[in-house]
Amino acid sequence: MKQPVRFGVIGINHGHIYGQIGHMLTGGAEFAAWFAPEPDLAAAFADRFDSIPMAFGEEEILEDESIHVILSASVPSERAPLGIRAMRHGKDFMADKPGITSLEALAEVRRVQAQTGRIFSICYSEHYDSSCTVRAGKLVQAGAIGKVVQTLGLGPHRANVSGRPDWFFRKAHYGGILTDIGSHQVEQFLFFTDSTTAEVVSSSVANYRYPEFPELEDFGEMTLRGDGGHGYVRVDWYTPEGLSTWGDGRLTILGTEGYIELRKYVDVARDRQGGHLFLVDHRTEQYIDCTDEPLTFGHSFVTDVVNRTETHAPQWRTFLAMELALIAEEEALRAGNLR
Amino acid sequence: MKQPVRFGVIGINHGHIYGQIGHMLTGGAEFAAWFAPEPDLAAAFADRFDSIPMAFGEEEILEDESIHVILSASVPSERAPLGIRAMRHGKDFMADKPGITSLEALAEVRRVQAQTGRIFSICYSEHYDSSCTVRAGKLVQAGAIGKVVQTLGLGPHRANVSGRPDWFFRKAHYGGILTDIGSHQVEQFLFFTDSTTAEVVSSSVANYRYPEFPELEDFGEMTLRGDGGHGYVRVDWYTPEGLSTWGDGRLTILGTEGYIELRKYVDVARDRQGGHLFLVDHRTEQYIDCTDEPLTFGHSFVTDVVNRTETHAPQWRTFLAMELALIAEEEALRAGNLR
Repeated sequence: MKQPVRFGVIGINHGHIYGQIGHMLTGGAEFAAWFAPEPDLAAAFADRFDSIPMAFGEEEILEDESIHVILSASVPSERAPLGIRAMRHGKDFMADKPGITSLEALAEVRRVQAQTGRIFSICYSEHYDSSCTVRAGKLVQAGAIGKVVQTLGLGPHRANVSGRPDWFFRKAHYGGILTDIGSHQVEQFLFFTDSTTAEVVSSSVANYRYPEFPELEDFGEMTLRGDGGHGYVRVDWYTPEGLSTWGDGRLTILGTEGYIELRKYVDVARDRQGGHLFLVDHRTEQYIDCTDEPLTFGHSFVTDVVNRTETHAPQWRTFLAMELALIAEEEALRAGNLR
Repeated sequence: MKQPVRFGVIGINHGHIYGQIGHMLTGGAEFAAWFAPEPDLAAAFADRFDSIPMAFGEEEILEDESIHVILSASVPSERAPLGIRAMRHGKDFMADKPGITSLEALAEVRRVQAQTGRIFSICYSEHYDSSCTVRAGKLVQAGAIGKVVQTLGLGPHRANVSGRPDWFFRKAHYGGILTDIGSHQVEQFLFFTDSTTAEVVSSSVANYRYPEFPELEDFGEMTLRGDGGHGYVRVDWYTPEGLSTWGDGRLTILGTEGYIELRKYVDVARDRQGGHLFLVDHRTEQYIDCTDEPLTFGHSFVTDVVNRTETHAPQWRTFLAMELALIAEEEALRAGNLR
């Protein structure tokens, strides 16, 4: 029997790390070791994974030749440098999104990835962890709505500012709203329109609700144009307290012969569960409950680690999604006050 | 007792004329006369309004001093010139949208309207004829979602190309997709964001599905920025045969303290009736059935004709909505083929 893929965790500043670990375990990988420099985060994590040893430091994990993959949900701006160190140590890498927070870091990550032939993956969870988004991918690929013309993605999030760490409010650390929560949406635009090249047509960011946090951006939008279709993205930190979950994430995929609407996390005033897909084609209007759709991201990723393939996501798309989000952020109109 | 407001109809090339007449009758006005140069359209209209005489020509109606208002749903490019003639004859005017199909015509309409002091109204029916949109206006004005930051309007329409007249396929006649069905959405953007000035940030149009009609645009989008908020608009002619109505029109109004989603004409796979409003605020998620919401556009318009007021819609907003739609159309990126 083959040895399992072994992974280590370095950096647990965002709770997404639990999802990333879940994907690896589902994929049959073995959790070998972890390290977090922050004692409070480490204590909570140690409680949850009490059979896995905490390493003395990052180096111990990077230099352990029995470990094949590093996962990280460190402070966003630290992910790319860590990924570069991981790849230089011969390891594959999976970051929480945004995996990269500047165009300079992206260029360096691309260079080192090409040199080393390692995998630099970003877990775009609003796609890979969303049952209805995965199902929509299958429907679109089967031609259910003809040629996709546009994706329209809404990514509202709850700010919950009192529970956020300092880095959440520092743009150099989180990268800006389009870089951060916008990158999820750009990946879906590329995936569903089957675009291999794309450009940012326009973008804007603003802070309307939180003047006390001047580097926080609470509203962002971008218009994209790819060789496979159009994309529009709106993200915000306004989710009101009355919503039963953290955000009413939506994706509408417009095709020449039909359309699909996803209500990913809630169906407002109807269902507090997520996973809702609405399909309209030339035959009928249809509701599809996707809660049983299998999430195969982890299995595909682990397979790619073993086989040196790109089935979980092509490397170019992972990078292009970040590149477009970073360009949109850099070129964004900075909006002022409203009447 | 006061004499009622009397109106005449000139041009019935779009079925929206029935809605316009309905507004006037609801508002207490009297239908005095009509004229249509096309014998086939005239025959069908005469069947429906068999007690109202057809005039011998446009002049007979324009020169009838007992008639106060002209309604028109003529070929779109003919509406502004007719409106100018109507205003010069001392009459108020209500056009189907788009009321104006070029920036040159808009400038002339503005000039003559200012000279004559007549009303040049455009019946933006996706607002004024939509119960949930009217209700949303009241909720927003009452502060239900805080300061509005953005409107996001989707206006998909069924093309039904085999049943369309020649002018539907000629851009000089219908004005382009952003001018035509886009203008509805721009009016709602101005209204809900309470913007008094605005600019087009970016726009694009394309024809992906109907190459046999080279002047038809079947996809259009625009990003807007006003002094009161942001706006995004997508319109298309792709409504699939399986949808129970002509289009799944949506409007999402994003506020700093909540949001509203309108499903104007259908709730896909749930309800073939329209008028659905979903409100999420700091307290709860709420569904509001708006089918009983009164539509007061006609009453307000007729009142304005009598009192020389602007309660149904400020004249500047009617014009600014058309201006932005026309600029978006003129400046639009023309998209080519998709992969």
